[in-house]
Amino acid sequence: MEVDINSADQDVICKGSSASLINLLNDIGARADSAAQVLKQAKRESKDKALMVAATEIRSNFEAIIRANVSDLNFAKNKKLTNALLDRLIIDEARLDSIASGLEMIAQLPDPVGTVLSNWDRPNGLNISRVSVPLGVIGIIYESRPNVTADAGGLCLKSGNAVILRGGSESFHTSLELVNCLQVGLRAANLPTDSIQLVPTRDREAVSHLLRMTKYVDIIVPRGGKSLVAKVQKESKIPTIAHLEGLCHIYLDEAAELEMAKNVTLNAKMRRTGVCGAAETLLVDSRAAHKLLPAVAKNLIDHGCILKGDIGSCDLVPEMERAKEVDWSTEYLDSILSVKLVDGVDGAIEHISKYGSNHTDSIVTDNPETAERFLNEVDSAIVLHNASTQYADGGEFGMGAEIGISTGRLHARGPVGTEQLTCFKYIVRGNGQVRP
Amino acid sequence: MEVDINSADQDVICKGSSASLINLLNDIGARADSAAQVLKQAKRESKDKALMVAATEIRSNFEAIIRANVSDLNFAKNKKLTNALLDRLIIDEARLDSIASGLEMIAQLPDPVGTVLSNWDRPNGLNISRVSVPLGVIGIIYESRPNVTADAGGLCLKSGNAVILRGGSESFHTSLELVNCLQVGLRAANLPTDSIQLVPTRDREAVSHLLRMTKYVDIIVPRGGKSLVAKVQKESKIPTIAHLEGLCHIYLDEAAELEMAKNVTLNAKMRRTGVCGAAETLLVDSRAAHKLLPAVAKNLIDHGCILKGDIGSCDLVPEMERAKEVDWSTEYLDSILSVKLVDGVDGAIEHISKYGSNHTDSIVTDNPETAERFLNEVDSAIVLHNASTQYADGGEFGMGAEIGISTGRLHARGPVGTEQLTCFKYIVRGNGQVRP
Repeated sequence: MEVDINSADQDVICKGSSASLINLLNDIGARADSAAQVLKQAKRESKDKALMVAATEIRSNFEAIIRANVSDLNFAKNKKLTNALLDRLIIDEARLDSIASGLEMIAQLPDPVGTVLSNWDRPNGLNISRVSVPLGVIGIIYESRPNVTADAGGLCLKSGNAVILRGGSESFHTSLELVNCLQVGLRAANLPTDSIQLVPTRDREAVSHLLRMTKYVDIIVPRGGKSLVAKVQKESKIPTIAHLEGLCHIYLDEAAELEMAKNVTLNAKMRRTGVCGAAETLLVDSRAAHKLLPAVAKNLIDHGCILKGDIGSCDLVPEMERAKEVDWSTEYLDSILSVKLVDGVDGAIEHISKYGSNHTDSIVTDNPETAERFLNEVDSAIVLHNASTQYADGGEFGMGAEIGISTGRLHARGPVGTEQLTCFKYIVRGNGQVRP
Repeated sequence: MEVDINSADQDVICKGSSASLINLLNDIGARADSAAQVLKQAKRESKDKALMVAATEIRSNFEAIIRANVSDLNFAKNKKLTNALLDRLIIDEARLDSIASGLEMIAQLPDPVGTVLSNWDRPNGLNISRVSVPLGVIGIIYESRPNVTADAGGLCLKSGNAVILRGGSESFHTSLELVNCLQVGLRAANLPTDSIQLVPTRDREAVSHLLRMTKYVDIIVPRGGKSLVAKVQKESKIPTIAHLEGLCHIYLDEAAELEMAKNVTLNAKMRRTGVCGAAETLLVDSRAAHKLLPAVAKNLIDHGCILKGDIGSCDLVPEMERAKEVDWSTEYLDSILSVKLVDGVDGAIEHISKYGSNHTDSIVTDNPETAERFLNEVDSAIVLHNASTQYADGGEFGMGAEIGISTGRLHARGPVGTEQLTCFKYIVRGNGQVRP
């Protein structure tokens, strides 16, 4: 799934927590921790049953969920939320059906727990297995998007992790209804209902304490705009899995084929402009700009894209505005693309190294050596050759659902699906070996 | 390699940094960052050449290194360091030779960078590879152990990471000489000498700033006693790879074979008592304690081990002292073992879950079902069946040298060798795919 990240519920974080709130959250944490002990041993059949029952429960409770959503929408309108944010909050029967289908799809995924990741024998007869295990307790902080409540709850359950959900305050009642459905599923599968909990208060202080619950929470996943993620990463005492932003580049090499350059660039920018894998800067080999850029630019402009170019680009495409320095580091998440001529693949790599966000970058070229240089030297989680940056997505990678894209270098990098929500242990089998 | 962690240079961390020190460290960080850009693309031959030349340089400069070491020892004696700490600091020709051999061994290890970890095709023709890449810049904070300077420098170099070393102040001159040798190797291989840097001051404030250099440092590896690691983890704004302590258990099941129980327990406790994989608590199935414990205990006592038992153990072995509650959570790192009777494997799992440190735990039993329950349900980085906990070691795992054992759940868990000092990127090869 993709995350539109145009804006963040920036104000969910604040300082200081009252004693009663701390007690409430510690209790949630302790219960999540206990649930995690059971969940890590849960059989695939139980986890899948919980997901399927939850999906059914969501479908059969759509009236109650939509009622809760109406109440959330009224609250949100009073808070004068933008239309974009309201659109993410709103739930109708079709969206609910898609949420339920999402849970059913997660049930179809392989169980990521208990996989023997590698296995080897030692000369002394010891046999060592590296086996996947759940991470433990995951705290997820997100915007007012009810679908994330179900997706994140489902992904954590499938991967054997207990989860504490903290969505934006405007989605509180809708999320509560969805968590109730998930808990019906857990109960039907004889799994602890504390496996999926929603922080039962809109109090913003709850987030601050959640970020400090090192005793109970193993991972924090902030899911939202850059400012939300940055604040969570700054405040959290718990490791986070996240990406700050997706400042993705398309580089059109001298040896790019024109039709491919046109199609890939248009798709990378315009398929959906609000997703983190959308291209934000187009780099064009200066040696080929005259033959590539005019047609690529026209295609973009014809589809409603605004172009902001450096002086060389503007010379070739007079419809372009002049880009400012800030444009090279701006994630527009809109129908805007900055354009720059660069000195071949070296110039492209240098630009991306300076301005990129290590998320996703693509080269279009028919020269395999140039492609390999770009793929090896651009230090991003995902690098592509002759394909759109919008493939930065767990589903498109064949991982199934994902909880986001990580630009971190530790543990999870790129799409974070159920497999990335596990870690591993070493199991060593001997016959009495003692170490000399 | 193993780390004796009896004590930590606890006082290396303090608050506040002067402007000139901050400038100094930022400069080191920026240079490490630049070096990392070159190093991540370095060929195996270059990295191995640097390691081999450094080893030769250490051997041929032993007089200068030992002179520096004598000066460090005088400084340390004035600071009234314990004999154990002095022993770790001291360098003689044999130890220097072993340090040099360590670098040569690292050169023999496979290059962990550029490995295709997995590769698959998508129905739309995209080919996706997950390929290992270096982590970037690693900061290592350790005690006054000159061998760590060379080991850590060599492991980071082999894995393509730039490293900033900050050893205990008593080893300053010895470490400086060793880093000089490593840099001679780097220069001979045409690699940036900034790939391996030592913080060139004994000022304790340097550590505080190093822990906050998020702009330049990707990972902090604290290597030392529990208090050092705890302080680093508390203060650092950068992710850490470490273990706090190794409170390792041996569980003797009803179905344990007596001779194996004796040998494994003795080795797990007494082979070396100061390493993190040493057993600290012996759990004995109460149903078999009468036939197992007296002989196992006698064997330990005969080898100079002090036993502290619960009431049931003391009844069976009168030589035991009575254990206090605090003993179950004490990492002695000494010839002391706490002993407790438990109610079968369930009792053992429960005790380990309550008091263990998720490091390394072992079961001795001839019953395969009981073994599987223990291996699956004990949530430690390393779980063993019928083998000594002292196998918790990268060399014993066949990984070659290691930088420590991680009890973290993210990224690196268990022994941290060169492979664990890398992450990965996704390389996607297409032929013009655009996303529908």
